[in-house]
Amino acid sequence: MVPDRPRLVQLARDECLRLLATDSVGRLAVVAGGAPHILVVNYALDGDAIAFRTAPGTKLDAAGRAPSCFEVDSIDRALQVGWSVVAHGRLEEVTRFDAATLARIALLPVDPWAGGDRGHWMRLVPSYFTGRRILDLGNLRTG
Amino acid sequence: MVPDRPRLVQLARDECLRLLATDSVGRLAVVAGGAPHILVVNYALDGDAIAFRTAPGTKLDAAGRAPSCFEVDSIDRALQVGWSVVAHGRLEEVTRFDAATLARIALLPVDPWAGGDRGHWMRLVPSYFTGRRILDLGNLRTG
Repeated sequence: MVPDRPRLVQLARDECLRLLATDSVGRLAVVAGGAPHILVVNYALDGDAIAFRTAPGTKLDAAGRAPSCFEVDSIDRALQVGWSVVAHGRLEEVTRFDAATLARIALLPVDPWAGGDRGHWMRLVPSYFTGRRILDLGNLRTG
Repeated sequence: MVPDRPRLVQLARDECLRLLATDSVGRLAVVAGGAPHILVVNYALDGDAIAFRTAPGTKLDAAGRAPSCFEVDSIDRALQVGWSVVAHGRLEEVTRFDAATLARIALLPVDPWAGGDRGHWMRLVPSYFTGRRILDLGNLRTG
């Protein structure tokens, strides 16, 4: 038995939000048909919420108000350090009836990967965050 | 309306497996309490399966045979190209009764981030893959 080493540090909400603001590509997870699905999306923060644009015909079509999570990380495999932040909450569509929100998020620098015009905005409104910083990946090999 | 541009290319199973073999850190998604959860783990391929080690007391404890997915990506935000591969399947614990599997995967270069001795191995056995290559992120901004 090798004794545990404290190689992970839990991150506070403020630090999670600060790290989320440093990137523009993350991974959205939703549940469809009882199984989890992960979709890589461009995003920007709208306050504490994660805003992104989607195309029709994706797993997200039926995801309104569904529990979801959104993950961003940065792992340096050479230096064996990094961090991962997950925002947990519910998805909400931003419809034309949310004029104030639409006007605000239309200014965000977010384009969907599928290209073209995607007027469909969604937000993940976090209820809590889990984040951890990896101080020493130890024997992690880069394969 | 801006017309769609074919900026995404779907990847075949062989290409998904080839790309999965190029990394050693990925993101596992499971469903717990009706919500998706994402956990970053070190991994190695055991044939077509994704093998990783876990600590007791995680969301994975109750995840045996549960639908799950595992995502690996590589995004160059400067060059605006990249790829994302998701393996969809079920989790299985590798117990001491699976002597042949244990003997095989014990040789894999995988250490869990929590450090210490984690004899608990799991595998995600994929039933299908979804992969896409991003040829041109277009107006993706890195801010």
